[in-house]
Amino acid sequence: MWLPSQLPEVESAMRDSGFQGDPGSLSDLSKPPMSAVVSLGGCTASFVSPKGLVVTNHHCAHGAIQLNSTPENNLIVDGFNAATMADELSAGPGARVLVTDRFERITDRILADARGATGRAYHDAVEAASKAAVAECEAEAPGYRCSVVDMYYGTDFHLVRQLEIRDVRLVYAPPDAIGSYGDEIDNFMWPRHSGDFTFYRAYVGPDGKPAAYSPDNVPFKPAAWLTVSTDPLAEGDFAMLAGYPGRTFRHRTAAEFADQVEWQLPSRVELMSALLAAIERGSAGSADAGVRYAAQVASLKNTLKRAQGELDGLRRSDAVAERRRQEAAMSAWLASQPDAAATRADIDAASRVIASARATRERDQLFGLMQAQTQLLGGAMRLQRLALERGKPDAEREGGYQLRDEARIEAALRQAQRRYAPEVERAILSELLARHRALPADQRVPEIEQVFGADAAAADAALDTLYADTVLASEDERLRLLAAAPAEVQASTDPLMRAAATLLQAVLRFEDGDKARAGELLRLRPAYMRGMIGHARSEGRAVYPDANSTLRVSYGRIESLQPRDAVSWAPLTTVEGIVEKHTGVAPFDAPGPLRDAIARRDFGATADPGLGTQTVNFLTNLDTTGGNSGSPVMDARGRLIGLNFDSNWEAVSASWKFDPRYKRAIHVDARYMRWIMARVYPAPQLLAEMGLPLDGADRGPAPAAAAGR
Amino acid sequence: MWLPSQLPEVESAMRDSGFQGDPGSLSDLSKPPMSAVVSLGGCTASFVSPKGLVVTNHHCAHGAIQLNSTPENNLIVDGFNAATMADELSAGPGARVLVTDRFERITDRILADARGATGRAYHDAVEAASKAAVAECEAEAPGYRCSVVDMYYGTDFHLVRQLEIRDVRLVYAPPDAIGSYGDEIDNFMWPRHSGDFTFYRAYVGPDGKPAAYSPDNVPFKPAAWLTVSTDPLAEGDFAMLAGYPGRTFRHRTAAEFADQVEWQLPSRVELMSALLAAIERGSAGSADAGVRYAAQVASLKNTLKRAQGELDGLRRSDAVAERRRQEAAMSAWLASQPDAAATRADIDAASRVIASARATRERDQLFGLMQAQTQLLGGAMRLQRLALERGKPDAEREGGYQLRDEARIEAALRQAQRRYAPEVERAILSELLARHRALPADQRVPEIEQVFGADAAAADAALDTLYADTVLASEDERLRLLAAAPAEVQASTDPLMRAAATLLQAVLRFEDGDKARAGELLRLRPAYMRGMIGHARSEGRAVYPDANSTLRVSYGRIESLQPRDAVSWAPLTTVEGIVEKHTGVAPFDAPGPLRDAIARRDFGATADPGLGTQTVNFLTNLDTTGGNSGSPVMDARGRLIGLNFDSNWEAVSASWKFDPRYKRAIHVDARYMRWIMARVYPAPQLLAEMGLPLDGADRGPAPAAAAGR
Repeated sequence: MWLPSQLPEVESAMRDSGFQGDPGSLSDLSKPPMSAVVSLGGCTASFVSPKGLVVTNHHCAHGAIQLNSTPENNLIVDGFNAATMADELSAGPGARVLVTDRFERITDRILADARGATGRAYHDAVEAASKAAVAECEAEAPGYRCSVVDMYYGTDFHLVRQLEIRDVRLVYAPPDAIGSYGDEIDNFMWPRHSGDFTFYRAYVGPDGKPAAYSPDNVPFKPAAWLTVSTDPLAEGDFAMLAGYPGRTFRHRTAAEFADQVEWQLPSRVELMSALLAAIERGSAGSADAGVRYAAQVASLKNTLKRAQGELDGLRRSDAVAERRRQEAAMSAWLASQPDAAATRADIDAASRVIASARATRERDQLFGLMQAQTQLLGGAMRLQRLALERGKPDAEREGGYQLRDEARIEAALRQAQRRYAPEVERAILSELLARHRALPADQRVPEIEQVFGADAAAADAALDTLYADTVLASEDERLRLLAAAPAEVQASTDPLMRAAATLLQAVLRFEDGDKARAGELLRLRPAYMRGMIGHARSEGRAVYPDANSTLRVSYGRIESLQPRDAVSWAPLTTVEGIVEKHTGVAPFDAPGPLRDAIARRDFGATADPGLGTQTVNFLTNLDTTGGNSGSPVMDARGRLIGLNFDSNWEAVSASWKFDPRYKRAIHVDARYMRWIMARVYPAPQLLAEMGLPLDGADRGPAPAAAAGR
Repeated sequence: MWLPSQLPEVESAMRDSGFQGDPGSLSDLSKPPMSAVVSLGGCTASFVSPKGLVVTNHHCAHGAIQLNSTPENNLIVDGFNAATMADELSAGPGARVLVTDRFERITDRILADARGATGRAYHDAVEAASKAAVAECEAEAPGYRCSVVDMYYGTDFHLVRQLEIRDVRLVYAPPDAIGSYGDEIDNFMWPRHSGDFTFYRAYVGPDGKPAAYSPDNVPFKPAAWLTVSTDPLAEGDFAMLAGYPGRTFRHRTAAEFADQVEWQLPSRVELMSALLAAIERGSAGSADAGVRYAAQVASLKNTLKRAQGELDGLRRSDAVAERRRQEAAMSAWLASQPDAAATRADIDAASRVIASARATRERDQLFGLMQAQTQLLGGAMRLQRLALERGKPDAEREGGYQLRDEARIEAALRQAQRRYAPEVERAILSELLARHRALPADQRVPEIEQVFGADAAAADAALDTLYADTVLASEDERLRLLAAAPAEVQASTDPLMRAAATLLQAVLRFEDGDKARAGELLRLRPAYMRGMIGHARSEGRAVYPDANSTLRVSYGRIESLQPRDAVSWAPLTTVEGIVEKHTGVAPFDAPGPLRDAIARRDFGATADPGLGTQTVNFLTNLDTTGGNSGSPVMDARGRLIGLNFDSNWEAVSASWKFDPRYKRAIHVDARYMRWIMARVYPAPQLLAEMGLPLDGADRGPAPAAAAGR
């Protein structure tokens, strides 16, 4: 996950891997071709024509496809193919294409007021300077979205400026049964057979500036776009990928790795199991309660499964021991450096801050779940917090309680109606309260004891009263309180609202402690990073910052995987696998036109010459995480060979540790996209726009568009 | 699945595959080394020392291990290792080692009275001649078990004579967590990591003749025993296997293949699903009923899964179309043969008999399930049938109702108590009766209509009365009727007993038709086999008979598998896979001594030199089916390299069609057995007895026992 600016540093390694271009040409993300790689906010995409055509994952465009679907014209089921630009459909008012055009180091500006401060003051100074920089940037450049990002945990701050295109239209989507073939069952799995691609087009006002959707808008003319390769792929081929990965934790300390492996993940597994059992107890004998909690159960199971997968992966990779070895080597190196004493002192201070959070981790976990896993109590706490925040100017409100968050809060309060059964919420709280009572005295929360008492009988009685007497089970009441003036909310005599008001005091107290720790870590972690980066440099190794939703580049190769004893996975899947998996029942219901084309072996030049059939997906050793969905995968000459859309299950722990034995990324083969668009659901107009052979059967001339780069 | 006598026919193919011995030396199953291969009745085993030491699968010895286990001395959990012969434990009065010593063609004798007859008379003549031959053989040779087996569906009959060793003792068994590591979860799966082996010893009286267990008995001295190989294994190596496979259907007609694929398996899947739904309906809201039907539900699910697997496999292999092509080629060849007309006429007549059974297949399926899937009605029908059969001399009773079957019938009548809930049995019968009413009029059973009426209301009313008024829900009543005189049973006025008496008339009528058809097919199918075998011979291909629990030999090689698109399975698994699968929870709870030995990499000479670690199981393309469990797998020189214990899931359809792309057999590597016995649960006394290196660390001298062959 290299910053583009780091690529010249790793030039020789890239060349050794087979890269045939100039790494310097990739290092400025405001210039071609990196400026062809855009963010959709959560997903990545790329321009593939001079007329603003954008390609991304089908699953990234799912909301837009759903928005345009009706029972009579169901684009989810049937797919979509705009015959002309006039037929393209708005992806909705919330859809965005974000084109990064500035990436500027502003560390000194951000830290100017923080220097000399500690704790909460350091945190608040950084936050205030960041908000000011963003406000200034956005005032200077209307139509742009600005943000401040933190590299290496407080070491450096950058101002990112992105052109915010707001008229995004749906151009082409395969049917869901192609775009998410295998769906949840195949999620994280290899071998994979998903046509997870969709085309958008970016539109701007006639003046070339971002504008809301209007029929008068015109296609955006990007400064760069990618050319789609027409060459075959094979194991060992060079591959690289650019995108906006969300968050990784690879530079956390060995103590944090140990906490993750020894406590966070195992306790999450145990606690999720206990909550699932509590929901089962609470809904026993009630089919209705079972239905109401189905989504919460699915989510808990998913959290449990992910936690177990991450735990298994970190243990398999011996991640804690390796991190300890890395720190020991760093410490040995650091001892001989000129600034050793000051750096060491900061590192040790950071360790103490980290250790201090461990002292209340059980409490924090339980208290968080009391709000997150309940509908009425959680709703009451949200209402009380919102009433508090509404007393401040919007910019000063706590994140999650600003004006832009209110619609989301309302939706949560509404949906409680379909997701709540009193006996289940009581079972969940009983479970969490029993665990809270079992905490050491210094971890117990006085406000919880004030509301729920100090023993099981008191808790039962409190729950009886709270849930018998509250009016919050009524959606009207919840919405009335959402609309009410803060003072009225705070004066509510509803027993759950009173309980929430009490518990909110603890929330605020803990939050203050959290922010003070966050400020200290922002101040102290740079010493740890300085040590780790300095030591790595001394050994000739470059270090990339943890992912933070900024544009990153990964390079590597197409690579198979040996996931388990005696099992090998080839790096390319074929349409034969679609037929093997087809049952006729979703998510394995390949559409008739696809099955017919496979049965006819109607492949042409998109077929793989070695395998003698049409490929579907491929596997690389590229480094990805959430946010990399839709990332363009490129060959040694920078041509598009596929789209990233998933990782393998064995790689679920990669957000903490990249283990080259197990980490793979899963991509749609661009040849499958071309074949679908040539032979199965033909879109000759788009193939032509991308300069690709119209029928997929023959190699076309070198695409004219390539000259535009 | 070659008859040993056929091996000289396939000699050149065997040599091409790598066999280094003389196929003629394997062709007489009464002589060494084939006489080292013995039957346990349902499983296969082999002698591996001159002192009657026998090796078979752990799962074949499970009953004996269980029998000798107590809560204080749990051999299932702890395994067993007899320090001396005196410590060996009886495998129980039912345990057998069967050593085949005669295999004689007696076709003329069996068919003497049948020739000229047709239908039921043909069937009865063959049955009578077979019973007479068995009685004569057993009278001549006390201590032997004799049987008549049918080759190529009535073409040939052989008399098989087996020495019946009745004192079988448990010598060595690994803990269950090794012997069935992965258990049901890994059943049919590859990669596999099961140490599925156990040692028995055969004992005879001091006079050398079979005798019941007695401390005075002495080890049996077999005429032959296998030598265990100490060489490594690798993909492509020659392998062969001998054993007693139970039943295959590969020589059935194309019409029968079509019936299987187009009707039997799909209707079984559909009907099992419907019965599962009926049981769920019937037990809704009753946890108790759910528990009572848990075993029946598990069995129905297993039947459903197997049927679906077999269906998927036969479709994947395009088995029906290929069988049709084979028949068409045979027909074309047959036309030019001298006996074409007569053969053709018999084949066509056989086709008509087969087609006639299809006319009532729906009826037969439903009627069979009414008895098989109910406890009280099924019990009542068994009681009525037994009362009828008890009026005949034992030898003339219907199979399943002879004296030796009565203990099994009693057990079934007793266990009804734990497996019955009236509302569930009613739900099952309602489902089956509704389906019966939907049959065309000529398929409906008058006796069913007599008991249950002709419409849904009548069926409900009849079920109300039958289950309200019957006393059969009482175990005492059922056992009283089991003990009662036939006339008393037949005179019972219990409504379910009356219903069973009525339904029994239909059973007997259908059985008569079935036996007449069986007789006709026994008479006519030999023409079909003559055609198929003759055509194959004309193309230089030998044909083995379908499996019928007689000794067979398969040869082939160690081979990997590509089960699905982009997935490859290596043919050897290693102890690393045990560690990967280990969760600490059964069936993945590898014992501490095993995990410690793996962690120490305490392997020695049993390790695979290429893989650099200890192997566990391996995969061959050998031809196996149920009954081949425990079969010795041998190398090109006839030395034991492993034990067969399972097939892969993709091969579940192999009983109908051997598809070389997907059919594999799963074996314990003899090196894993040796390693467990050398380093994990040491049994140096047995290694020495088999002439193997005592500590597994070095190659020992050529075992002295080998000279005995």
